[in-house]
Amino acid sequence: MFRTIERDELEPLATGAWILGTGGGGSPYLSYLNMRKLYAEGTQVTLMDPAGLADDDLVAVVSNMGAPLVGQERLADPDFATRPVRMMEDYLGRRFRAVMAVEIGGGNAFQPLLVAARTGLPVIDADAMGRAFPEAQMTSFAIAELPMFPLTLADIRDNEVIVARAASWKWMERISRKVCTEVGSIAATCKAPRTGLEVKRHGILYTTTQAIALGREVRRARRQHEDPVAATLAAARGKLVFRGKIADVQRRTTEGFLRGTARLAGLDEDRGALFEVAFQNEYAVGWRDGRVVVTTPDLICLLDSVSGEAVGTESLRYGQRVSVVALPAPAVLRTPKGLANVGPRAFGHDTDYVSMFDDETIALPGAVG
Amino acid sequence: MFRTIERDELEPLATGAWILGTGGGGSPYLSYLNMRKLYAEGTQVTLMDPAGLADDDLVAVVSNMGAPLVGQERLADPDFATRPVRMMEDYLGRRFRAVMAVEIGGGNAFQPLLVAARTGLPVIDADAMGRAFPEAQMTSFAIAELPMFPLTLADIRDNEVIVARAASWKWMERISRKVCTEVGSIAATCKAPRTGLEVKRHGILYTTTQAIALGREVRRARRQHEDPVAATLAAARGKLVFRGKIADVQRRTTEGFLRGTARLAGLDEDRGALFEVAFQNEYAVGWRDGRVVVTTPDLICLLDSVSGEAVGTESLRYGQRVSVVALPAPAVLRTPKGLANVGPRAFGHDTDYVSMFDDETIALPGAVG
Repeated sequence: MFRTIERDELEPLATGAWILGTGGGGSPYLSYLNMRKLYAEGTQVTLMDPAGLADDDLVAVVSNMGAPLVGQERLADPDFATRPVRMMEDYLGRRFRAVMAVEIGGGNAFQPLLVAARTGLPVIDADAMGRAFPEAQMTSFAIAELPMFPLTLADIRDNEVIVARAASWKWMERISRKVCTEVGSIAATCKAPRTGLEVKRHGILYTTTQAIALGREVRRARRQHEDPVAATLAAARGKLVFRGKIADVQRRTTEGFLRGTARLAGLDEDRGALFEVAFQNEYAVGWRDGRVVVTTPDLICLLDSVSGEAVGTESLRYGQRVSVVALPAPAVLRTPKGLANVGPRAFGHDTDYVSMFDDETIALPGAVG
Repeated sequence: MFRTIERDELEPLATGAWILGTGGGGSPYLSYLNMRKLYAEGTQVTLMDPAGLADDDLVAVVSNMGAPLVGQERLADPDFATRPVRMMEDYLGRRFRAVMAVEIGGGNAFQPLLVAARTGLPVIDADAMGRAFPEAQMTSFAIAELPMFPLTLADIRDNEVIVARAASWKWMERISRKVCTEVGSIAATCKAPRTGLEVKRHGILYTTTQAIALGREVRRARRQHEDPVAATLAAARGKLVFRGKIADVQRRTTEGFLRGTARLAGLDEDRGALFEVAFQNEYAVGWRDGRVVVTTPDLICLLDSVSGEAVGTESLRYGQRVSVVALPAPAVLRTPKGLANVGPRAFGHDTDYVSMFDDETIALPGAVG
């Protein structure tokens, strides 16, 4: 039920989580460096199988909230990550049994590790997205209509906000997003606490392990001079969507989000074709020559064609050679209720969910073999 | 130490508070109607002399926060006003001894009465502005550098927010304002609780009584066919600044505030002259023929020249005949520390405080005779 996350798993976790971030969630690199330093100082973090949770255990769901571009300029910090968790314990008058990430994709894969390093709590091997998504109502917990409050939020100054009640998940998103934007588009949060039963029933399980396994495969391929993009496809049951060169990027930070589009000119077998991808923190919809070929909730990942490293929406730049890869979304996101929360229309795109995967091939993202 | 607020004091309170609102604070009319109904149903509210507070009593400081224009479209409601007070009691695990208004000017004069009608708590005869101001750091409590948190906020849906800590009064203002704007630019709030000692030392005292007395005088003059503008000047030691007709209004609701300017063409002895007044919810600076003649924190009141009724910044319209009146500000607002928080520069005007009053004439606004 418990195992130590080893020091040599941190870098694979960063690589894997960054791919599962589908362009968003913020680069895990700074959080990874922070954890590496904490490990060098003797810290060890325990990973806990969600099956080991008692039904009435209380689990902290943590997240570093904000615009990825801003996240790049703010160093990760275990004390900062822990503040909203302590706020929540004070507010509830109860202690947490464990801590988990709201999203395994991007830097938030490390957020529970930072909290664990400070508090000694174990990290639950699960998240609530199986990837990264930009908004509060885009979780498996929201899709299951679990309560969305209270939420605690701390900024890097001395501001602390509790959203004690919210009329809906959307209202929770709107209110917490406005506060986050006002304090500089970056805030540490502790989402609505979950019981052990809720995590076991409605969490996306074993995604920390899967992210580490995915990152390991990519790094192994790199070391052995194999194609790391192909390694990702094999490890996460993905499909290659497009190979090309970035020809144009439009990007703006608005309302606490990084929004925009990128256009790719095809290379190799895609020469002559054009691929366009729209994002809101994460890549949401992809068009090949004007036709929708891949949409959220399937994971749309842009990978450096040589290194296989994920390319974030905040670091897209002209001339990069990238491979667009689709990984299958967790099953709960592909249900009608799931699609209402995280399908393309939830991102303002007037198009239905388009998948490159048969129902049979649906698997957790990052599931190896 | 205690007396009942009589039913026939409600209308004078509305009239007086609306004048002391200096254009902002929102019209008290809807709250007055609500209280009149509650009184008709048998409610009675008790007014408490702040001198009767024990030093360690806890006082709720309540406010209906938002843009006056929106306030005009949302009916006042005792349950809504009471929600943040109950939230605060739950959060602190303590009960309040009494309730007071953050500002006596405008509709917020009635906010503690609405809470009192629901809770049975007495209303403290005091506020924290002696008028109305648009921002959280513009109170006598902020000028005295008292703690600014926690604050509780409820909207008309089911959203409830606690600002548990704030780095400064300005940060409290920024965060609570953003939440208020997001939920529709109207929210019921309970500001940082005050001890009895803090209220006695740093409150603006007896302003409920003064608002009622001012309103009584205006209404008496109206009934007896005397000049109600002259009655206001006499009752509140004010000075006439300008008489004219509104020639132009520019007004916009931005960032949760009603901002703009109005221009008046002179009438009677002011014929040929031009008066311009800038506002942010409340009137802040007045220019006569381009020269600053009156500024915040002195109370700049626009009164209907015939009825003496206050004219709010949200109801200014072309052709209205108005008298611009200045009333002296409470002494604490005129200190250097006070002016830093509520002087013209605090409203973005690059001009010093200009007063029509000698230091000797400084009195509480609305102080009668």
